[in-house]
Order: sequence, then C-alpha cells, then structure tokens
Amino acid sequence: MTGKIAYLGPPGTFSQEAALRQFGGECDLLECRAIDEVFAAVESGGAVYGVTPIENSTEGAVNNTQDCLIESPVQIIGEQIVPIEHHLLAREGVDKAAVASIASHPQSLAQCRKWLRTNMPDLPLRECASNGQAAQLAADNPAVAAIAGNMARKIYGLRALAESIQDQLGNRTRFAVLGREQTVPSGRDKTSILVYAQNRPGALFRALEPFENLQISLSRLESRPLRGEKWEYIFFMDFEGHCQDEKVEELFRRLSACTDEVKILGSYPAA
Amino acid sequence: MTGKIAYLGPPGTFSQEAALRQFGGECDLLECRAIDEVFAAVESGGAVYGVTPIENSTEGAVNNTQDCLIESPVQIIGEQIVPIEHHLLAREGVDKAAVASIASHPQSLAQCRKWLRTNMPDLPLRECASNGQAAQLAADNPAVAAIAGNMARKIYGLRALAESIQDQLGNRTRFAVLGREQTVPSGRDKTSILVYAQNRPGALFRALEPFENLQISLSRLESRPLRGEKWEYIFFMDFEGHCQDEKVEELFRRLSACTDEVKILGSYPAA
Repeated sequence: MTGKIAYLGPPGTFSQEAALRQFGGECDLLECRAIDEVFAAVESGGAVYGVTPIENSTEGAVNNTQDCLIESPVQIIGEQIVPIEHHLLAREGVDKAAVASIASHPQSLAQCRKWLRTNMPDLPLRECASNGQAAQLAADNPAVAAIAGNMARKIYGLRALAESIQDQLGNRTRFAVLGREQTVPSGRDKTSILVYAQNRPGALFRALEPFENLQISLSRLESRPLRGEKWEYIFFMDFEGHCQDEKVEELFRRLSACTDEVKILGSYPAA
Repeated sequence: MTGKIAYLGPPGTFSQEAALRQFGGECDLLECRAIDEVFAAVESGGAVYGVTPIENSTEGAVNNTQDCLIESPVQIIGEQIVPIEHHLLAREGVDKAAVASIASHPQSLAQCRKWLRTNMPDLPLRECASNGQAAQLAADNPAVAAIAGNMARKIYGLRALAESIQDQLGNRTRFAVLGREQTVPSGRDKTSILVYAQNRPGALFRALEPFENLQISLSRLESRPLRGEKWEYIFFMDFEGHCQDEKVEELFRRLSACTDEVKILGSYPAA
C-alpha cells in the first residue's frame, strides 16, 4: 500500500496500535497531535487513511471525533476494537527493586491505582502529559518505570515488570478508520449514520420506527446536543447492513420522511 | 452546610468550578484523583456530596462516571453545565512579550491550536499532566504562560493575557452532583435512568414506546455496551419529570413490562 496513515499520536498510543492492526506493521504512519488533524490529513490527501478513537477512549475526547464527523466529508471505512491493557515497563535488565518512581498519564495512574496500592505502595508517582512521554522517561532512566501499553513497550524497547495491571479488565476502545471513498459490501457490514431530529416527544421514537418495521438491528445509539443549540439533538446510530443493501436503501427513504436530515458516515466490515 | 464536597481534581479543574457553582465559594472541598474515588467518598460518608463530569468532558473519561453509576447506590441529585473556556494565563506584571513558552495539557493545547498558530506561532509548547500543573509552572516562572480555565486563574493568582482562546466556542461540560438520598420534587425536574435491554431488533424501540404514549420528552439517550458483554447494551436516558410524579410512576410500570431491568439514577432540578 502506498500513502500515509494518519493517527492520533504521540507514538505509543492505542490509536497507533489500531492503525497497525488495520494496515499491518509496514504501513507508513503520519503522527497527528489532535483528532481534527487526522481528519484534515485525510481530507487534504496528505494521508490516504486515518485512525481516530470513536467510542470509550481515554486518549482523546471522542466528542472531537463526533464533531469532525458532523462536518467532514470523509467516510468511515473500517473499525478496530483494541483492548486497553496497561503494563509496568522498565529498561532491559532493571528489576522491580531498582524502580524509584512510576511515571504515566494521570488517567492511567488512576486506572491502575488498586494494583499500585497493593504492589508498589511506597513509590512516588510522576504525572506525565502522555504514556508515550512516560515510556521515554523510563527508556532514559533505569530508576523510572512507566505505565503504558504494548505500542509504547515496542517503540521504546522496554520490558514488562508486570502485565495487564489495570484495575478493570475488559476495557476496549473502538477506533474508526477514515477514508475518502465508500467501501464495497463485504457481506458482514455495519453502517454509521447521523440523524438530525427536533427534541420533541416522539421524535426519536418515530426515527426508530423504520428500524423496527424493517427488522434492522441497531448496535449503537447516542444522542448529542448540537453545539450551541441547547435543545436540539443529533443521533449517532450504527446498524447492521451496507448502504448499498436494498433494505438499507428502503430504511433511508423512510428515515428521510420522519427526520430533519440523515448523513451517511460510512459502511464498513464489522470488527 | 457541613460536610465535604468530593470533586475530580487536581485543583483548578472544571469539576471544581462545577462544585463551587452548586455549593458556593464557602464549601469544604475534598480533592479526588479519579472518578471512582468521588463515588467512594460519597458512598462511605467521607463526603456528603460529590461532583463528576457526566457528558462531554476532556478531564476524565465520562465512561468512568457511567461505570460507577451502573454499580453504585448513590443518587444524582443535581446537574451543573459549565462552559469550557481556556485563557492564556501568566503572573501579574508579565506581558505577552516576556513569555518564552506555553504550558498546558496536550488536549488543551490542541483545543487552542489555531489561536496559538495565529497569535504566538514561534513559542515552544510544554505538555503537562494537567492544566493545574501548567498554571503552577506559570505561577513559579514569569517566562511561562499557561493555558487553563477560570478556576486555575483564581487558585494560582494569575492574570489573563488573552481570554477564551479555544478554537471552538460553545463547548460545555455537564456535571452530575451526587448524594445519598433522593431529592424532593422542585417542579422543574429531570430524571436519569439506566435501562437494560437485549440487543435484538426492536428492543430499544419497545423501550421508547411508553415515553411516546405518555408524551414524556427524552432529553438524552445513550447506549453503551456492557463491560465484557460485546452484544448486550444498556441505555442511559434522561427525561423531563420527577420519579415521584404520577406520570413517571406509570412510565416505570410500563418500562418494567418491556425491558430487562430499570435502575433509577436520580431526579433533580434541570440546570
């Protein structure tokens, strides 16, 4: 594949891991420092594809991805679901007893609090701007251990003193893969849309009626207030099927009759 | 009022601002470093009330608040909607020309990128673990300006070199005020509930039917996958009315007939 893949950096993020899962280890990555930069890179052609968190992320506000999806012409062409696992990482040859402080982003430190309290209760914690920055500190200094994920471990050549130390297991982040063109049906697709509806009783109910009548399964539904419009809402919906399926085309005809506007964000193979 | 108010720290966060808006400047604040600590403080009685972000936050993952609401017995007893405004802050007497670097959390730097590029394009950016930490740097060093909100300005005694410099205007974060007891009706209340439903076509549609038939206006609806259960969803719903209203009691009777479980998170005056 030629062309760059834009992702939400810095290096070592779960967004980078999602990009590698989608495109393989040989792909040419373009680091972006904000979600709207990822969108801008795909829109301008600076990147062929982009990867940003879309659900349940601690790295970037998912709202930013939603805001960009409202305004951008890019399409969602894929999704990746990445398990969120934190490890205690140090330089090769360093053992636990040699660690004098633990560095990570405040949210990651919070997510591993119980483990830290039980296993390394007396060490000072050092708050960093990102887990990548913490891994860099650990790579530079054998007295520092970092809490970070698999990508940071690989990039900075660190060793895990303890694996999967986050207090809650089973956390996952969902990433959207962005491109400029619609995909062709794969036979196991999902479609994401935006629906504009006025906030009066029954508006959402009526918008769901076509799904019920056509027996189309919604896998996600989220309402968001429109920016600056306190009482107007938009709905992000994911459902089974591809926008070229006959049943989905019929869905769009019925939706356009009972909502203010529908925007197709993309159809893509379900992860 | 006696008793502590737990909030998501560090000092200078918008959570602290929400706490002061709800309880006034004289309240006794208890700083927590994670959202589940806020819940634990209220549950244990270490705090009488707690304040955590519940919608559209960049400070803590809102998902953490939702996870806690699923499991905790605490009630939502109020809400606060705080505008998210970032200022360029420096020590008294420092002017723009004396600033040699700009410090802030990476997300805040990203949110002010266009302003920085136009107004201070040549200055190095310094990524910090929180905006409070950045404000502390600015308070210690006249060559550093911090990007942070009003609370940080007050706490660290800083002056704004420029106000409201975030690229997107109109951003707000919604905070939940937590307590141990249900509120009495105020006459202008909202109620938040959790609904468990199987992810089959029509499950959500049937759960909305009672709202439609009783003409109860939903102001927010969000689906979340259940942790570890990829295909089971729960719905967070906010609607007009108090759970002691007759119409809302009838709603609960109808909902219990068409869903797996309903949990009342609380009724409270709408902001």
